[in-house]
Amino acid sequence: MTAVDFETFVARLADVAGEATLPFFRSALGAQNKADATAAFDPVTEADRAAEVVMRRMIEAQFPAHGIIGEEFGVKADDAAYVWVLDPIDGTKSFVSGLPMWGTLIGLKHNGRPCYGMMSQPFTRERFFGDGQASFWTGPAHRGQGQERRKLRTRACADIAEATLMTTSPRLFTPEKRAAYERVESRARIPRYGGDCYAYCALAAGHVDLVIEDGLQPYDIVALIPIIQGAGGVVTSWDGGDAANGGSIIAAGDPAVHEKAIKLLGA
Amino acid sequence: MTAVDFETFVARLADVAGEATLPFFRSALGAQNKADATAAFDPVTEADRAAEVVMRRMIEAQFPAHGIIGEEFGVKADDAAYVWVLDPIDGTKSFVSGLPMWGTLIGLKHNGRPCYGMMSQPFTRERFFGDGQASFWTGPAHRGQGQERRKLRTRACADIAEATLMTTSPRLFTPEKRAAYERVESRARIPRYGGDCYAYCALAAGHVDLVIEDGLQPYDIVALIPIIQGAGGVVTSWDGGDAANGGSIIAAGDPAVHEKAIKLLGA
Repeated sequence: MTAVDFETFVARLADVAGEATLPFFRSALGAQNKADATAAFDPVTEADRAAEVVMRRMIEAQFPAHGIIGEEFGVKADDAAYVWVLDPIDGTKSFVSGLPMWGTLIGLKHNGRPCYGMMSQPFTRERFFGDGQASFWTGPAHRGQGQERRKLRTRACADIAEATLMTTSPRLFTPEKRAAYERVESRARIPRYGGDCYAYCALAAGHVDLVIEDGLQPYDIVALIPIIQGAGGVVTSWDGGDAANGGSIIAAGDPAVHEKAIKLLGA
Repeated sequence: MTAVDFETFVARLADVAGEATLPFFRSALGAQNKADATAAFDPVTEADRAAEVVMRRMIEAQFPAHGIIGEEFGVKADDAAYVWVLDPIDGTKSFVSGLPMWGTLIGLKHNGRPCYGMMSQPFTRERFFGDGQASFWTGPAHRGQGQERRKLRTRACADIAEATLMTTSPRLFTPEKRAAYERVESRARIPRYGGDCYAYCALAAGHVDLVIEDGLQPYDIVALIPIIQGAGGVVTSWDGGDAANGGSIIAAGDPAVHEKAIKLLGA
């Protein structure tokens, strides 16, 4: 498969995921069953499952030897040389709240290392992607004739006092981790909540300097790693280790601010 | 001016505001001057000012007797029978962070009462509007042939334990107000941060049940009141008074959950 063929294949994966999810976004199909309010809230929607099923089928048909890790339907052959890591709807709370701050994450690992990643937002028709060397942004078709493609570059930010910092919610940290997070937040120029995968893409595009989160699953982050790194950013665990395992994650546009934030988190 | 002419005029106001703001969104034009990081952060961008200037000029040409209250250029004839209330970019932190969770707010008061409101999001091409009786949603052109128009209705939600609750950031409350807010948040089904004007529109569209905020200016809320009320929702100050003055605001899709939340805020 050539690079062009591969790109077309991933674009098609994102297309079918969008076709599966959009009918549930802001529609009666997406309404929750309020009669069942006593049960624990489960943000897994039918849209999530439908999108993962169609993506898995396409991958299995095209690449039968590849492994797949998905949020909804678990692990298949994760010891294969190539393993796809899928999260059909990252940001399910935004999805059910009618906000366009969610995305479909499509990642590919080669020998354990994330080598390709895409975030697709079908409502705004945005796609962010990276292959470990460079990243591009494909703008919504409605903004001009055809699609716009732009190289993503993180921006320089030498100090936390200059940084725009994002996290999905301070409620998602354990008390101990929250105290560490707040040491950074209290020094940041602009803290901003909400975001999920969108926050990491805004960082890759040079609008946000730091994203700090806790409790991530591998499928929440694997697809984003090549986008961040391809744009010149750094993404690791809080102790500087491999981000691909999930857990406590810090992403920075500038290595200088990454180093300062890591020290503060561990202080 | 007929109702159709009026609607065309407001649509054109939103068009020119979008033309003024979008070039600054996610572009080099929108970059902040990092060399000036020692100055207090000022989210007022050139885009904000440009959009208000063009809207004011159009209103002054079409309705010379009307008053205007704008975020950027202050008050003109606010004792007139009709007064426009403008916020060119509500959600400036989202704007500078490259997130599409901001909007242009265009409100009109008649004898002090908000009678028409529009929220326009030019990047996603969404417009939410209300005239005190009904509200509509105009979908992005790229989702189909031409634009989609849909009636907005809030959803039923009898209890806080079933509610999706939004606020822009818990950091925006005073300590005393924050404690009151947290009495509601701790009982809510899904608390969600971020949003600004987008949160109120998601409430009008039936995806969110409560929005609770503090420290709003009149131009942050006036345009949203007819949208919320037109969709069947309730919006007041925390003590049940007029929301049009800004301050501490609570919006609810269902009057039942509004009453319960008001009691908890004042407890």
